[in-house]
Amino acid sequence: MSAPRIKELRRAYGFDEVAIAPGDVTINPDQTNTTFSLDGQNFDIPIIASGMDAVVSPYFAGLMGKAGGLGVMNLEGVQSRYEDPSEVLDSISKASPEEATSALQKAYSAPIKENLVGERVKEIKAQGVRCAVSVTPALTKKLAPLAVEAGADLIFVQSTVTTSRHISKSTRGLVFSELLELINVPIIVGNCVGYDVALELMESGIHGVLVGVGPGAACTTREVTGVGVPQVTATLDCAAARDEYTRRTGRYVPIITDGGIRTGGDLCKAIACGADAVMIGSPLARAAEAPGKGYNWGMATPHPALPRGTRVHVGATGSLQQILFGPTSRTDGTQNLVGALAACMGMIGAFNIREMHRAEVIVAPSIKTEGKHFQRGGQ
Amino acid sequence: MSAPRIKELRRAYGFDEVAIAPGDVTINPDQTNTTFSLDGQNFDIPIIASGMDAVVSPYFAGLMGKAGGLGVMNLEGVQSRYEDPSEVLDSISKASPEEATSALQKAYSAPIKENLVGERVKEIKAQGVRCAVSVTPALTKKLAPLAVEAGADLIFVQSTVTTSRHISKSTRGLVFSELLELINVPIIVGNCVGYDVALELMESGIHGVLVGVGPGAACTTREVTGVGVPQVTATLDCAAARDEYTRRTGRYVPIITDGGIRTGGDLCKAIACGADAVMIGSPLARAAEAPGKGYNWGMATPHPALPRGTRVHVGATGSLQQILFGPTSRTDGTQNLVGALAACMGMIGAFNIREMHRAEVIVAPSIKTEGKHFQRGGQ
Amino acid sequence: MSAPRIKELRRAYGFDEVAIAPGDVTINPDQTNTTFSLDGQNFDIPIIASGMDAVVSPYFAGLMGKAGGLGVMNLEGVQSRYEDPSEVLDSISKASPEEATSALQKAYSAPIKENLVGERVKEIKAQGVRCAVSVTPALTKKLAPLAVEAGADLIFVQSTVTTSRHISKSTRGLVFSELLELINVPIIVGNCVGYDVALELMESGIHGVLVGVGPGAACTTREVTGVGVPQVTATLDCAAARDEYTRRTGRYVPIITDGGIRTGGDLCKAIACGADAVMIGSPLARAAEAPGKGYNWGMATPHPALPRGTRVHVGATGSLQQILFGPTSRTDGTQNLVGALAACMGMIGAFNIREMHRAEVIVAPSIKTEGKHFQRGGQ
Amino acid sequence: MSAPRIKELRRAYGFDEVAIAPGDVTINPDQTNTTFSLDGQNFDIPIIASGMDAVVSPYFAGLMGKAGGLGVMNLEGVQSRYEDPSEVLDSISKASPEEATSALQKAYSAPIKENLVGERVKEIKAQGVRCAVSVTPALTKKLAPLAVEAGADLIFVQSTVTTSRHISKSTRGLVFSELLELINVPIIVGNCVGYDVALELMESGIHGVLVGVGPGAACTTREVTGVGVPQVTATLDCAAARDEYTRRTGRYVPIITDGGIRTGGDLCKAIACGADAVMIGSPLARAAEAPGKGYNWGMATPHPALPRGTRVHVGATGSLQQILFGPTSRTDGTQNLVGALAACMGMIGAFNIREMHRAEVIVAPSIKTEGKHFQRGGQ
Repeated sequence: MSAPRIKELRRAYGFDEVAIAPGDVTINPDQTNTTFSLDGQNFDIPIIASGMDAVVSPYFAGLMGKAGGLGVMNLEGVQSRYEDPSEVLDSISKASPEEATSALQKAYSAPIKENLVGERVKEIKAQGVRCAVSVTPALTKKLAPLAVEAGADLIFVQSTVTTSRHISKSTRGLVFSELLELINVPIIVGNCVGYDVALELMESGIHGVLVGVGPGAACTTREVTGVGVPQVTATLDCAAARDEYTRRTGRYVPIITDGGIRTGGDLCKAIACGADAVMIGSPLARAAEAPGKGYNWGMATPHPALPRGTRVHVGATGSLQQILFGPTSRTDGTQNLVGALAACMGMIGAFNIREMHRAEVIVAPSIKTEGKHFQRGGQ
Repeated sequence: MSAPRIKELRRAYGFDEVAIAPGDVTINPDQTNTTFSLDGQNFDIPIIASGMDAVVSPYFAGLMGKAGGLGVMNLEGVQSRYEDPSEVLDSISKASPEEATSALQKAYSAPIKENLVGERVKEIKAQGVRCAVSVTPALTKKLAPLAVEAGADLIFVQSTVTTSRHISKSTRGLVFSELLELINVPIIVGNCVGYDVALELMESGIHGVLVGVGPGAACTTREVTGVGVPQVTATLDCAAARDEYTRRTGRYVPIITDGGIRTGGDLCKAIACGADAVMIGSPLARAAEAPGKGYNWGMATPHPALPRGTRVHVGATGSLQQILFGPTSRTDGTQNLVGALAACMGMIGAFNIREMHRAEVIVAPSIKTEGKHFQRGGQ
Repeated sequence: MSAPRIKELRRAYGFDEVAIAPGDVTINPDQTNTTFSLDGQNFDIPIIASGMDAVVSPYFAGLMGKAGGLGVMNLEGVQSRYEDPSEVLDSISKASPEEATSALQKAYSAPIKENLVGERVKEIKAQGVRCAVSVTPALTKKLAPLAVEAGADLIFVQSTVTTSRHISKSTRGLVFSELLELINVPIIVGNCVGYDVALELMESGIHGVLVGVGPGAACTTREVTGVGVPQVTATLDCAAARDEYTRRTGRYVPIITDGGIRTGGDLCKAIACGADAVMIGSPLARAAEAPGKGYNWGMATPHPALPRGTRVHVGATGSLQQILFGPTSRTDGTQNLVGALAACMGMIGAFNIREMHRAEVIVAPSIKTEGKHFQRGGQ
Repeated sequence: MSAPRIKELRRAYGFDEVAIAPGDVTINPDQTNTTFSLDGQNFDIPIIASGMDAVVSPYFAGLMGKAGGLGVMNLEGVQSRYEDPSEVLDSISKASPEEATSALQKAYSAPIKENLVGERVKEIKAQGVRCAVSVTPALTKKLAPLAVEAGADLIFVQSTVTTSRHISKSTRGLVFSELLELINVPIIVGNCVGYDVALELMESGIHGVLVGVGPGAACTTREVTGVGVPQVTATLDCAAARDEYTRRTGRYVPIITDGGIRTGGDLCKAIACGADAVMIGSPLARAAEAPGKGYNWGMATPHPALPRGTRVHVGATGSLQQILFGPTSRTDGTQNLVGALAACMGMIGAFNIREMHRAEVIVAPSIKTEGKHFQRGGQ
C-alpha cells in the first residue's frame, strides 16, 4: 500500500477535544474587559443570540441588548409571517412529539409579509436597543433594505455555506460589494469555514464573518451530506484569515463563531481560538424569556425533501440574566456564561478579548473518566 | 524500548472519522450533475445496488435501472437456485431469530440451476433496463458466459478479497485477461483495497474496481480474521491508483466503494475521497420493494465452518424512490441519498463527480457530544 | 484551507491515556525506597492528603503523619470557622442530595475565627506529627504567620491557578519573595501547570510546587471555563522545569501532582512522569477515618455566582491503613497505594522515586475492551 | 509552555486499534501452513494453552497436544497442591460470587507437594503428547528439575515482568544461563516487553520468549500499578529483537504473544505483528473440557495484600474442537481460531507463519458504528 499522490487528510478539532492552558500571569476577573466591537458599534459582552424563532423575538432582542449583547431576529421566520406570532409559536411548543414536524411545516408554509419587517424592527428599536436582523442570500435584496429603512442597525446574511461566489443559473447570486452600496449599515456574512473563503469575504468589504459549518458530528448537515468542519479548526483558520486581512489592510473584521457552543467552556475556547464574539442558540433557548418555551428548532426544518433539523426539547432552566451573568447553582457550565468568560480571562491573564486570542490551546480529549477535581477558592 | 527496524503502522480512516470541508465557491444543487459512466455506459446516479439476495431481485433491478442507477443480481443466490424464489425468501424473512441461521443454511443448500441464469437475465432486460450480475471467481467461467449470452450488460466478479493473482492447487485461479477474451461486456472486479492491487487489476484490462475489505470494526471479516481496511483510506488509495493508471494509459477505470455506507453523508464522503460510484446494500434493503422484506443477510452466511454474517433486521422504512430521491421526514441521512449528494456538491462547489474528487477531506472524529446545530435555509 | 500562521495545538495527555513500560531490570519490591524529601523534611511515603474539609481534620492529619505521609489542613474551612466542626460536618454529610448545596453554602457562610488557627495547629502537633496547613493567596499574609507561630511546619498556598505574578487593582497580589521573609518554614505553592510558570515560581524561592489545573475533562473548571491541562502533560512540563532549575542552581524543588489521581496506577504514572509526591483527596475521603464520612466536596463550592464543585458520594470503603498499605481484596487499584507503588518500582527497576522519574511512559489509550489479563505470582 | 527536555511519549497500540491489510496475492486457505516450531519441536498449530488452573489440567493438556498445539500445566497451582484437584476446582467454580475470592484464597493456601510434580507430568505424557509445565522464577530451580526428570519436554518460566537481571537481597535471582546447564529441555521465559529485554533474554540462551505485560487497559496490573504495554506494540518490538538476534547469531528464538487475545482476529493480528505463536487462556477456558467449568481466574489472585485478578465467568460455549477448528455458528470470532488463521493467511497471501510476519498492519481504531458489512463466498 505504499502509494504516491494519495490525498492527505488534515486533522480538525472540535470543542470537546481541546482545552485552554492557563497563562504565565493571572488577573483578577473583575479587571477583565469583555467588550466586543463591530464596525464602531460596541457591545459589553461578546454574545449574540442566533436568528432563530425559538430564541429571538423582538422582546428577547430587547433583553439581549439591555444585557449588553445582541439578539438577531430572523426576517424569514414567524415574526414576519404572522401578525401575532405567539399563537403559532404556541402551536409548535405545545405539539406532541409526533405532531412537531408537521406543526413546523405548517407554521412555515405561511408567506412572508413584507409589511411586518419594518414593524418588527421598530418593535425592537422601541426598547432602546440596537436592532439586528438576519436574512438568507436569496431574500437579502428584498428584505434588507426594508429593515434598514425601518431602523435596523446590523444585517446578518446567513446560509448553511456562504462564499463570496455562488453559482446559480436560476437566480443571480448575491454580490456583497453590490449589497454594500445598497445599504449603509454593517453587514455580517456567513456561515463559512476556511482561511481562503474568510479572506475573500473580508475582501468583499463586509463587516463581520460568521464561522461554522456542520461543526458537530451530531450535526444534521454532517450526517446527511458529510460536510462539516469542527469549530476549533474552523475558528483558528478564520482567525488567521482575519489577522492576515488586518495586516494587509489595517481594517479589523471580527469573526463570530456560530454553532456547537453549549457551555461557558465552549464559549471560552472559541474566543481563545480567535473568535471576537460567539453566536449561540440552544443555550439561550433555555431562558425562561425565550419564545421557544423550552424548545428549539432549526430554520431549515421545513425543507420538504431533505430536512436537516427538528424540534428539540431543551428545557427552560433559568432566566436570561442567570444564563448570562448568574448566580447559578449549576456546575455544568450552562449558566453564568459571562462570569465563566471573566474567570477564564483571569486564569489566562487576558485583560480583553484580543489578548485572549493569544492563549495557548491544547489538544486534550474529553475522556470522561478522570475523577472530579475539586477547586479551591480563587485568589 | 528504542528499537531499530520495528514495523511501522500506517493510520487508516473510516467514514465516521472524516468530514468534507466546504469549497471556496458554492453552486446551486440543481446545477450539479451526478452522472456516472463505466466503459461508455452512462448512469444518472452513481448508486449501485449490491448483489445480495435481500436487496436485488429482477424486479428491484428494474426499479434501480429506471431510477437511473444499477441493480446487480447475484448469480449464485436464490434467484438461480429456485424457480420461484419468493417462497424461500419468505422462509428467511419470516423465520424467528432463533431459526434464521438454519433457514439461511437450508435456503442455500439447494443447487444452482444453470437454466435459471438466462431466465433471470431476460426478466431484468424485459423491464427495459441494463442488466448486471455478480459471480464469484470460482464460478465465473461457467456462469458469466451464460448471462452474457442471455443479454447481461455488465459482469461483477466479486469475492471477499480479490487480487489479480490467486494461488490454489485445487483449481486454477481466474485469470482476468483470459476472461476478457471470453466475454465482451464490461467486467467489474473486487473487492480490493490498496494501491498496488488496484493498479494491477486495472492493468489486467478490467473495466471497474470494487473497493472495500472488512471496512468497519463491526465487520465480521475483521472480527474473525483481523483483516480489514477502513473505507476512507481504501478509497483514497485506490483512487490514487486509478489516477496513476489514467496518467499512464489514458484509460479511466472507475472505482466503486462497496461496504460500510449507511447514510448520504457516507456516500458523499466516499465520492469526495475519489470513488466514481458506490455500491450499497443495507440502505436499499430498507426499501419496501426490496426482496428481503425488512431484513438483510450476507452471501457468505451459509459457510458451515466459519460463518461471517447473519440475518439482520433493517426495517422497511420507505419506498426506493424516497430512499434515493426523497421527500423524507428523516434527518438521519438514510433517505434522499441523491438529494444529499447534490446538496453536498453544491456546498463544495463541484459541478460533477470528477470535480467532487478534488474536495478537501478532513479528519474530524465522530464525538457525539456537541449540541445539535440548526441549519438555515439554503441560498 | 492551506493557511499560514494558524495557531498550532499541542497534544496533551491524561492518566487514562498513558501507561508505564517495565524496565530492563527488575527489583524486589521490598528493596524499593518510597521516601520523599522537601527542604530537608523527610517523609516515608510520597502521599499528601489534600487540604479539603472532607479529607483532613486535625485527627486525620495525625493519622497521615504517623503513616509516614502528610495531611494538609485547610485554614479557611470549617476547622477555623467552628469551635466544634463535627456538628457542621455532620450537617453536610447527613443532608439529602437536594439540600447538599445549601448545606454547604450555609456551612461556609460562618466567618473565619483567627483564634482557631493556632488551636488547630496545636491539635495536630500534639499528635507528634508535622503540621501542614493550606491558605489561599488572599489570606496568606494574615493566616500563615498565625499558623507558623503556633508551630506549623509547612505552609501550602493554593488557588485554582497560581502564578508568580497576579494582577489585581483591589488588592496587592501576594509576592512570594516577601512571604518568604515573613515566615521561616517551607512554602509550597500552586496550583500551576506549564514549564515557564513552574520555573518562575521556583525562582521566587519557594520550596515546592503543586501541579494541576483542571486536569480531567469532567473537571468543573474545564467544563465551565474551558481551562485545564491533563495531568500527565502538566507533570512532564513541571518536572522539566524542576530539572532545569536544579541544573541552573543546584537547589532541588520538588513538584507535587495534585488532582485527577484515583488509583495506584494513576499515582505511579504521576511519579513516573516526574512528580516527587502526589496530593490526593477523593481516594483518602474514602477512608473510614475521614471527616467527610463517605462524602467529598470542593472548597470553591460556596462561590455564589459560579460554583465549580458539589458534594460527591465516594463511600467509606476501608481504613486509611488499608487504603495506603493494604491488605485489600479490591482489584480496582483504590487500596494499598503504597504497595502498588513498590510493585511498580520493582517492575520498572527503580530503587527510589528519583530513579522512577527515568521510567519510560507510553501513550496507551484506555480502550476498555481487551479481555482481563490474569497475572502470575511475582518473582 | 514551550519547554525543552520534556520527556517524550511513544504511541503504543493494542489489538482493537489495528487491522491487517490484505496482500497483493491471495492463497487458498487449504494451502496454508500453520506449523510452529520451537527448538526443533514442531506443532501443527501455533496455539499454546496458558498455564492457568482453570484452563489446563493434565487431561486438557492431552487434548491440546492431540489437537496439534500445546497445553502448559502450572506447577504451582492446584495440580501440585492436591492429590485430587477436582474437588477444590469444584469448590471454586461452585462458589457464589461473594464467596469466590475466599474460595480462591483457601484453595491456594495448601502447600505444594513436590511428589505431585512428577505424577502430573507422567499423567500428561501417558496421553502420548508433549508435556509443558510452568513455574515462577523463585521455584524454578526446585520444581523444574523434578518435572524434567519425570519427562517434561518444555519448561515455561513466567512472572508478571521478567528480565534477565532481577535484583533481590532476600533471594539470589534466577540466572538463566545457570538454569540452562541444570536442565536439558527447551526453556521459554517471560513475560517481557521491549526490544532490549527481549534481546537480552535471547542472549542468555533460552529458547522462547513470552510477550505481554499488562496489555489491556482493563488489565489489573495496569489499573493497580500503571504498568503495561499494549500487545501490538509489545509484539512488534520483541519481533524486531528476534529478527536482530537471528541476524547476529543465526539462531531463531520464537516469540509467543501471551495476553489480551480474545478472538481469531486478535490471534491473527498478533502473528501478523511478528509472533510465532500465541498463548491464550480465556478463549480456551470456554471449552467444555476445561477444568474451570465456565470460569477463569488468575494465578496471582491469592496475593493477600495486592490482589490482581479475580474469578471471571466466561461460560462453557463449545468443545475444544469447535473453538480450535469449528464448525461454528458464532460470528464473533471466538470459535474456529485455526480456520480464522488459515482464512487470514489466504487473504494476505502468506503460505506460512514466517510469511505472515510480512503482512501490512494498519492503525484502524475500533469505532463500533459502521454498519455490518456482508461477505460474499470466498474464491
